[in-house]
Amino acid sequence: MDRRSFNRRMLLGGAAVATSLAVAPQAAGTPLRRAPTGGRVKRIKMYAERLSDGRMGYGLQRGKATIPGPLIEIVEGDTLYIQFENTTDGTVSLHVHGLDYDIAQDGTRWSRSGVRPGGTRTYVWRTHAPGRRADGTWREGSAGYWHYHDHILGTDHGSDGIHKGLYGPVIVRRAGDILPLRTHTIVFNQTMINNHEQGFAPDFQATLGDRVEFVMITHGDLYHTFHMHGHRWANNRTGLLAGPDDPSPIIDNRIVGPGDSFGFQVIAGEAGGPGAWMYHCHVQHHADKGMGGLFLVKNRDGTIPAYDVHKHQEGG
Amino acid sequence: MDRRSFNRRMLLGGAAVATSLAVAPQAAGTPLRRAPTGGRVKRIKMYAERLSDGRMGYGLQRGKATIPGPLIEIVEGDTLYIQFENTTDGTVSLHVHGLDYDIAQDGTRWSRSGVRPGGTRTYVWRTHAPGRRADGTWREGSAGYWHYHDHILGTDHGSDGIHKGLYGPVIVRRAGDILPLRTHTIVFNQTMINNHEQGFAPDFQATLGDRVEFVMITHGDLYHTFHMHGHRWANNRTGLLAGPDDPSPIIDNRIVGPGDSFGFQVIAGEAGGPGAWMYHCHVQHHADKGMGGLFLVKNRDGTIPAYDVHKHQEGG
Amino acid sequence: MDRRSFNRRMLLGGAAVATSLAVAPQAAGTPLRRAPTGGRVKRIKMYAERLSDGRMGYGLQRGKATIPGPLIEIVEGDTLYIQFENTTDGTVSLHVHGLDYDIAQDGTRWSRSGVRPGGTRTYVWRTHAPGRRADGTWREGSAGYWHYHDHILGTDHGSDGIHKGLYGPVIVRRAGDILPLRTHTIVFNQTMINNHEQGFAPDFQATLGDRVEFVMITHGDLYHTFHMHGHRWANNRTGLLAGPDDPSPIIDNRIVGPGDSFGFQVIAGEAGGPGAWMYHCHVQHHADKGMGGLFLVKNRDGTIPAYDVHKHQEGG
Repeated sequence: MDRRSFNRRMLLGGAAVATSLAVAPQAAGTPLRRAPTGGRVKRIKMYAERLSDGRMGYGLQRGKATIPGPLIEIVEGDTLYIQFENTTDGTVSLHVHGLDYDIAQDGTRWSRSGVRPGGTRTYVWRTHAPGRRADGTWREGSAGYWHYHDHILGTDHGSDGIHKGLYGPVIVRRAGDILPLRTHTIVFNQTMINNHEQGFAPDFQATLGDRVEFVMITHGDLYHTFHMHGHRWANNRTGLLAGPDDPSPIIDNRIVGPGDSFGFQVIAGEAGGPGAWMYHCHVQHHADKGMGGLFLVKNRDGTIPAYDVHKHQEGG
Repeated sequence: MDRRSFNRRMLLGGAAVATSLAVAPQAAGTPLRRAPTGGRVKRIKMYAERLSDGRMGYGLQRGKATIPGPLIEIVEGDTLYIQFENTTDGTVSLHVHGLDYDIAQDGTRWSRSGVRPGGTRTYVWRTHAPGRRADGTWREGSAGYWHYHDHILGTDHGSDGIHKGLYGPVIVRRAGDILPLRTHTIVFNQTMINNHEQGFAPDFQATLGDRVEFVMITHGDLYHTFHMHGHRWANNRTGLLAGPDDPSPIIDNRIVGPGDSFGFQVIAGEAGGPGAWMYHCHVQHHADKGMGGLFLVKNRDGTIPAYDVHKHQEGG
Repeated sequence: MDRRSFNRRMLLGGAAVATSLAVAPQAAGTPLRRAPTGGRVKRIKMYAERLSDGRMGYGLQRGKATIPGPLIEIVEGDTLYIQFENTTDGTVSLHVHGLDYDIAQDGTRWSRSGVRPGGTRTYVWRTHAPGRRADGTWREGSAGYWHYHDHILGTDHGSDGIHKGLYGPVIVRRAGDILPLRTHTIVFNQTMINNHEQGFAPDFQATLGDRVEFVMITHGDLYHTFHMHGHRWANNRTGLLAGPDDPSPIIDNRIVGPGDSFGFQVIAGEAGGPGAWMYHCHVQHHADKGMGGLFLVKNRDGTIPAYDVHKHQEGG
């Protein structure tokens, strides 16, 4: 597998998902792509690294760590072996939410599953499809918008590692789940977004009609409310309604706290067309500190209405 | 349309909903009223005003602004033209959650969609029914308990406008949705309710058996937990269970943060009969500051058991 | 009814649920036990007591108060008469969430339903099964993970009573609901768990394959995020998926605020096997203060892998 073809995204399900973050027009009527059946065994390499500015990140290649770390995307039934190398000067780990693993993979001090500076170990994460148990009850599958993070640096709960950027997204698909054209990860970590300083939160680009997925993760000490303008989603497993009888509420604002994760797909601009649509924390004093960015939905010619102006021009 | 017949409520769906806030007995066995099919184009006038005490509000008539602003109630498929006039001395706007609008209606400084003092502009809000997309996926409808607020005054997120009272409820019905006899709006804004000073939160009146709807919106910087005594609701789109297979949890307490909104209907006193039923924030130090009021459920003769006493009499 | 056979658990539904907190191996393939049909009238005695260390608790016998108070478990349709005796030196009460009661049972100062020191009164709590109303709408049932607490001591919202430990769990089953082998209650009250000092939160024991239920309640002023390692649940009424079409999200982390309650069942170690699985608040500075404990899932021979070590040994 040529890792250079992957840009902050680890594609493990075998589906033909576009991986470039560059925006390309998507023809209307593009057939839906769906997650394949799982059951594969995948092996990847992950590094924990200290960035030049003191922040820390996970990466798939040495010297390529990012914040958030790479998106790990698998399908129910897949097993993932992660050869994890710690290039930092502190003991760190990988602790994952939602997936199956034995206690020796917990990524905690108590389970002796951290990795010392310079050390390497292999974490094994498993997943399973839903199904009926021998006793007749229904067992849930692993599908969901999950995440991984350090659980050791600084405190027994990895508070320093997380604060510096040691976190990333995991998506477990169910066979048949609709696949997006592109996935973006938004992490609220204290009043930072993806550990950018206030006012420098990332913008995300799409072309009108693109099926875009967002994974939203929260870390730190604070609660937030995630709001996106001009787009909304279902507050359920996929963020999409299964059909007319799905009672899930449709929302565009959600309260979140540390350790929470959820995700959803939107058709960019479906409700409101192209534009520089804000996403932000709706806690007023967080928003006022700059805790927000833009979802830039372009026309097919690349233009964005009402976006060729100084950002802070007076309204009216 | 004679606006004087509407009291803090903007009825746009064409349904024969009672609009008076005065309490009237409802005969048992009153047939259910349901939302009609949408698709109408409606035009209203809205004003932003400064109240005599320094607070600010939205209103349907000049000099009649309220906090919260008027309830806007439409049906999926309806389009609403709001001729908005700003009578205040600052630039303000209308930003709405959940509805469809193009970026020029966003009500933000960046989209140049605020209104200067003395100015007027028309906001266009659209809605749509759920349905199947060309690609076979199910598109959600606009139905929901939503809200509008200023997004400009004081900060780029309208923190001053919101703090002073520039917010209000929007309900988008689905054709066939059950209509209540009466709708009440409760906004937690910092530790105020509907911008009343602590200890002066509004009480709401009903007669035993009335179908009463509450819309609950949160603003400001703080999280809260909304609790109501003696009544509960489904944590889904309508607040009502669709039938025996609806897995939605029934709750009487919900954590909320700024920008959140939800709603529900209750049959007044169905579980516990008449009484002065408290609603309050369940965060203890908020409740202790007076962040709560009463849902006064009367007998048909107007009496309320155990309510003819001084409020703070010692229990027991 | 011999109360000595009940250990911090009040079994009222008539189901043959094991009540001992002692861990016993459960044979694989044990047939599911399900909640019976409700409709019984039950009578219990409850005491409010001051513990020797200044904390306060509810108990089923004099001198046996616990924090949290005893689990009250009934079935939809049951009615419960609670003869409540206040042995403390302050006026206290029983206020319950989710159940049916008239205003005179509200447990608040305003409804004159507290109990003075040395006094006794009988609270009546009723429940009902779901069903269709005369108007054709579907009425929710009482089933849920609920709770009771003082609403009077110290403030009109019982802030002192709650702070000192006057709270406990209530589970209302629906006929046919799957019954667990054992139920544990976890209450986040400020940064305490079950009013234990920081770092002394309770551990819970199970044998691999046990069907274990957790009831999670929040009190105080703070929001939290409840996280459990190696186990997850459905965010719906039961915490279990009804079947393949249930759209409820599967989560292992949930934001909660005061007055919230939820519950779920897990098959101990189903996803990850035996181990000392942490549960904790995921708010980092709460976790770092010791706001967490262990779910000890043992092998059938009583051993727990990777647990024979000093807790704070360096990872790696």
